[in-house]
Amino acid sequence: MVFMLALQHNIGISEGTRSLNGKPLVSIIAAGMSKFGKQDGLLAREIFALAAEEAFCRCPKLNPKTDIKAMFIGQMGEAYEHQGHMGAVAADWAGLAGIPATRTESACASSGAALRAGIYATMSGLADVVMVGGVEKMTHRTTSEVTEYLAMASDYPFEQFHGITFPGLFAMMATAHMHAYGTTEEQMALVAVKNHYHGSLNPKAHMQKEITLQTAMGSKYVAWPLKLYDCSLITDGASCIILTRPELAAKYSDMPVHIIGSGQASDTIGLYERKSLTSLNATKLAAKTAYEMANIKPTAVDLAEVHDCFTVAELLAYEDLGFCKAGESGKLIESCETRLGGCKPVNTSGGLKAKGHPVGATGTAQTYEVYMQLTGQADRRQVKDAEIGLTHNVGGSGATAVVHIYRSEQ
Amino acid sequence: MVFMLALQHNIGISEGTRSLNGKPLVSIIAAGMSKFGKQDGLLAREIFALAAEEAFCRCPKLNPKTDIKAMFIGQMGEAYEHQGHMGAVAADWAGLAGIPATRTESACASSGAALRAGIYATMSGLADVVMVGGVEKMTHRTTSEVTEYLAMASDYPFEQFHGITFPGLFAMMATAHMHAYGTTEEQMALVAVKNHYHGSLNPKAHMQKEITLQTAMGSKYVAWPLKLYDCSLITDGASCIILTRPELAAKYSDMPVHIIGSGQASDTIGLYERKSLTSLNATKLAAKTAYEMANIKPTAVDLAEVHDCFTVAELLAYEDLGFCKAGESGKLIESCETRLGGCKPVNTSGGLKAKGHPVGATGTAQTYEVYMQLTGQADRRQVKDAEIGLTHNVGGSGATAVVHIYRSEQ
Repeated sequence: MVFMLALQHNIGISEGTRSLNGKPLVSIIAAGMSKFGKQDGLLAREIFALAAEEAFCRCPKLNPKTDIKAMFIGQMGEAYEHQGHMGAVAADWAGLAGIPATRTESACASSGAALRAGIYATMSGLADVVMVGGVEKMTHRTTSEVTEYLAMASDYPFEQFHGITFPGLFAMMATAHMHAYGTTEEQMALVAVKNHYHGSLNPKAHMQKEITLQTAMGSKYVAWPLKLYDCSLITDGASCIILTRPELAAKYSDMPVHIIGSGQASDTIGLYERKSLTSLNATKLAAKTAYEMANIKPTAVDLAEVHDCFTVAELLAYEDLGFCKAGESGKLIESCETRLGGCKPVNTSGGLKAKGHPVGATGTAQTYEVYMQLTGQADRRQVKDAEIGLTHNVGGSGATAVVHIYRSEQ
Repeated sequence: MVFMLALQHNIGISEGTRSLNGKPLVSIIAAGMSKFGKQDGLLAREIFALAAEEAFCRCPKLNPKTDIKAMFIGQMGEAYEHQGHMGAVAADWAGLAGIPATRTESACASSGAALRAGIYATMSGLADVVMVGGVEKMTHRTTSEVTEYLAMASDYPFEQFHGITFPGLFAMMATAHMHAYGTTEEQMALVAVKNHYHGSLNPKAHMQKEITLQTAMGSKYVAWPLKLYDCSLITDGASCIILTRPELAAKYSDMPVHIIGSGQASDTIGLYERKSLTSLNATKLAAKTAYEMANIKPTAVDLAEVHDCFTVAELLAYEDLGFCKAGESGKLIESCETRLGGCKPVNTSGGLKAKGHPVGATGTAQTYEVYMQLTGQADRRQVKDAEIGLTHNVGGSGATAVVHIYRSEQ
């Protein structure tokens, strides 16, 4: 066990300095996800309980009440339900009152950060089985309320105060990318077309309908060059993952999925302080760490769930994750290689664009999709012979990025 | 190293099931804290930077930019400054942009939970040096705004919705304790008198003035039986702690403080679902775990920082932490044994009552005080020959509790 050897030799496995050579950090023994969409009459805690119930049903050898020793849950905003302290609330509604339970918040990467915290907890030796997840209840609020609450993840004094919201921030990145590389509105719209196609195959997706390029291109501008169909959805939903140490995985599951790389990174919160608007440095840093730990190159990734909060964000992700060179993401989406049937399908779940984006739940919902794919349970959207998956969760306009790499049981 | 042996023998160190026999989990190599009080014109991020600066100055052998590999920061409410995503913001303002940085929120135990998450991270082997801390900027808001924001940590559908706020919740616990054990308003007021005395000796405390029993008893009722002087303060402030693995501590510090016990627990968020109103079950569970890990009994604790958000909460803590039997906390405060000079001084910093309660910063500010005491730097409030310290951080009305036990370098 590399981790133990590292301790013995007192050399540490500090981020970015050592490779774990693809040995599992932790193993996933179950995953759950609520239906994404509009869930009238349910509180966030109840939606989370639905996700937890699925995970528990998937893992009959687990006794949740006695086995799970810690929980981290991502929730972006306490304003939606006027309800903070969601760690304790979610633990209680999952039937786990008593365990250490903490909410993590890193904007739209809140549950990506929960997964990372859960990996720390599992590897620490203090907790053999750890539950991580995320939840958000958004649709009962008006669009202007949601816009205001989401904006809290950007910089108050230099962004929010001056009236800019997230469509505007990503529109600035889009225009910078168009200027630098000639990326077109049509290329961005193709991301929406692809992800809506994928969503049409996912019975848990918020929107399960295909759209045409004409529909996407004909939709109204929200913040030029981004149109309505370039934007992800305001959605209610929850997701969760159950982790254990790799050597204990077989005790709980016949088909665990192993996490072999984990990277998280931060950046300035304000766009105005960044060197580049055409890439997210936090994604690059997090990906570098995750690839090094996993000891793989981007070409080895069979499928990925990336953070398409706006269509342009998926294009940036292609480049920052090394799926193509800088400036070539427009050509990559045109090639159809990231569509189901291509060599590297991206966002087979439908992504934030069609599956929906209940912000706190998105990170571990990405992991849920990869878990379903790597265990052969993705039904009509199954990627054949998938062995290596990747998730990429971004907070705000990129002040946080979390990248994880997964390997199926071999 | 017990932790490594545990891994070798594949037995795990699950919470509450094994003792670490007092071996350090992690070591504290530096701590920092801003002045607590009203800090006009500063943003939370700037106040946090002041705390970080102190910690860095205390540890000249540390190169923060290259050595610190992860950060967790407690912040209770994004509403105060309309600013979430505080992990990334705080990391950037501490000069650490790039590292993994996540906000933890467990109501008033947000930075206690950050410390716990930081211990997981340090013990995981993924990060040799980890910074944890907390921050809150509150005083620029009106009292009614602060009351509303704080209330989000209680149950929305069954508590907040009906108009109850935290003074009311703790007043219910106080009346239950008075009914069960004959506890008096004077005994609660004595907690305020003691903690204001301690605060008068702490140059960083929000209120550095002594008060008399008559002053406390004569103050206006907020929620009977709790009066103005039974309530902690609305304060701006930040605190932070730098952790490393015990075997690396000597590289950075000549006088590390070791964390030998860590317990965190959760409970129902609503008071109405609890079996008892005269104790906090989460405190009891967290304390049991921490004492077992540390392999000590409550009598071994030389000094403690406990969560006196209201005076009655300190009395409950005496009992739930095992400093006295159930119902005897009134007598304990009358005995003066928890005052400086007594056998078990509690809240030598002034506590939340006099030092102040910038909610997100409170947990690691408690650790700061214990660090200062166990390294002999507490000046006029120094507890002589202190070797074992304890911190106790409560979220909301007790849906979260975090207990840590510390030992000085021997």
